[in-house]
Amino acid sequence: MATGGSTFTPALTWDQRSLRLLDQTRLPGEEAWIELEGAADTAAAIARLVVRGAPNIGIAAAYGLAMQIARTPADDELQAAARVLREARPTAVNLAWAVDRVQDAALAAAPEERAAAARAEAEAIHAGEDAASATIALLGADLLAGSQRILTHCNTGALACGGTGSALAVAVELAQRDDITVLACETRPLLQGARLTIWELRRAGIAHELLVDGAAAGLIRRGDIDAVIVGCDRVAANGDVANKVGTYAHALAARAGGIPFIVAGPTSTIDASIASGEEIVIEERDMDEVRHAGGALLTGADTPCRNPAFDVTPAELVTALVTERGIAAPVTRDSVLALLEAGAVPAERA
Amino acid sequence: MATGGSTFTPALTWDQRSLRLLDQTRLPGEEAWIELEGAADTAAAIARLVVRGAPNIGIAAAYGLAMQIARTPADDELQAAARVLREARPTAVNLAWAVDRVQDAALAAAPEERAAAARAEAEAIHAGEDAASATIALLGADLLAGSQRILTHCNTGALACGGTGSALAVAVELAQRDDITVLACETRPLLQGARLTIWELRRAGIAHELLVDGAAAGLIRRGDIDAVIVGCDRVAANGDVANKVGTYAHALAARAGGIPFIVAGPTSTIDASIASGEEIVIEERDMDEVRHAGGALLTGADTPCRNPAFDVTPAELVTALVTERGIAAPVTRDSVLALLEAGAVPAERA
Repeated sequence: MATGGSTFTPALTWDQRSLRLLDQTRLPGEEAWIELEGAADTAAAIARLVVRGAPNIGIAAAYGLAMQIARTPADDELQAAARVLREARPTAVNLAWAVDRVQDAALAAAPEERAAAARAEAEAIHAGEDAASATIALLGADLLAGSQRILTHCNTGALACGGTGSALAVAVELAQRDDITVLACETRPLLQGARLTIWELRRAGIAHELLVDGAAAGLIRRGDIDAVIVGCDRVAANGDVANKVGTYAHALAARAGGIPFIVAGPTSTIDASIASGEEIVIEERDMDEVRHAGGALLTGADTPCRNPAFDVTPAELVTALVTERGIAAPVTRDSVLALLEAGAVPAERA
Repeated sequence: MATGGSTFTPALTWDQRSLRLLDQTRLPGEEAWIELEGAADTAAAIARLVVRGAPNIGIAAAYGLAMQIARTPADDELQAAARVLREARPTAVNLAWAVDRVQDAALAAAPEERAAAARAEAEAIHAGEDAASATIALLGADLLAGSQRILTHCNTGALACGGTGSALAVAVELAQRDDITVLACETRPLLQGARLTIWELRRAGIAHELLVDGAAAGLIRRGDIDAVIVGCDRVAANGDVANKVGTYAHALAARAGGIPFIVAGPTSTIDASIASGEEIVIEERDMDEVRHAGGALLTGADTPCRNPAFDVTPAELVTALVTERGIAAPVTRDSVLALLEAGAVPAERA
């Protein structure tokens, strides 16, 4: 069982006036914090992956807009700031969702109340994501009871989400109940698994092993993995899941190997406005991310590359979608939309 | 179409007395050659991946044993040298096959003829692999006629095999006939795709794009790939294929996406002594390979890792097995064993 308890470091802190972000591009080598002042610098930090993970991107953007409104509350500046933040990354639906919530709250308030209303809404978003993480952890751990070798991809702990995370929060909860090992895929190109998930698991005292992304399918086929659990960047109305590139291959291998493939995330990642994964815009990032790893050049400096940041896993490969409002299983348009109509499950009842 | 012609650099040269290996661990940064003298240094070079690719490992081991026999032709020393070479890497069947051939040829000769017999047998193995590459290229290109976006994994060009390679030789031949693009997976942990395949494709003037291994499945799902072609390190009697870790996930994605998944290699990689992939020993390599990329440390220096060098793709996912003796399709025990009984297809008839 876990020996270290929940010693996760938060990805961001808020002191009611300014937002500080742990610069995740510098982990695990260095713990550097960046202090932000408004929308433009927050959007830049999101684009640069200083903060990442769909829920935390939403929280950071919410505070970014609230800080901007405190400085320049006029309508046009507010809307320009919201636009800059919404465009910081194209795939994470929480980003637009959080920005819309703060913008709507501000515009609904009297001019002199805008800053306070925006701040309160951002804080509510943050608190909601923390609570969602706690519920997801409990529901997911119940679902995976008995699984001891858990494969995950990318980083879905406190560095990505409220609380102790989404998929990784489930592993943290499982580790409180049983002897488990988390097998973390390194997650090329940006190595969030090797850099961030391993760093969080070590701090939490949870047994872990790192592997290259391509090794996961073979280990599943050999019977070395009991379950796969991943987060999500955007879930379409039919349950198709956009998540970090590499996820879809794990889902195929889990299906072929007869083990559960679980997606965990807050309902803020569900985008009911898109019918299926076909409509999800996949961000193509800079080729230099593929050409390098850990600062080292791996190939010719001008080698042409493909660099989709995400892929889409079809709903039929997802065993269950675990959210703070309950579990959709099987994952269908009906079960996903029912989650959006449900109330949150309080963590104490989960 | 290809603009550069077949300008592949050979992985090894033989001047009838000594073997020189291009040190592939230093590519693409540096072209350094290593001169070898006998079995021990050749085995060490194979283990260190100075030379790699199942066919080239066999050729190098054959010359390593022949050089050793020229120096110390006595029975016990010959057998000790053969053992050292056979154990240099556990998965590639060509290694044992080539060593056995040279050993048997030497032992069948009169004592004073041993060195010459061993050398002649090693040269015959080398010539056979060159001819096999030429035939595989033609048969594979006929099979994939019309495919323009070809995904491959690891390195299967002249750096891995005789001639211009196995799977990559097919792409080279296709590029003579049509406008194609080769999408090369980087192939973590040792990045043979990023380092070696890209280097070979650039030299050959063939359009190419590099991607992280985890991106392949999503691109296949999106319809961005027409066919997958890979090499093989060992093929079981039933057609199960052991190949570089990461291959199996591509096979699953190809099946799900309805595109061909082709395995190309000389029949020397078929091991009729093992019934299925279940029996193939998967080499587990040093954890430091996972912890690093291009010399950079990616995670904690003592992070526990899993590092299987290969995975097994079941025969039912392989659309066709292309060899110098013809094509097995569908891939079954009968069609694979029939290849072993067939004669080689001359390149001019392929």
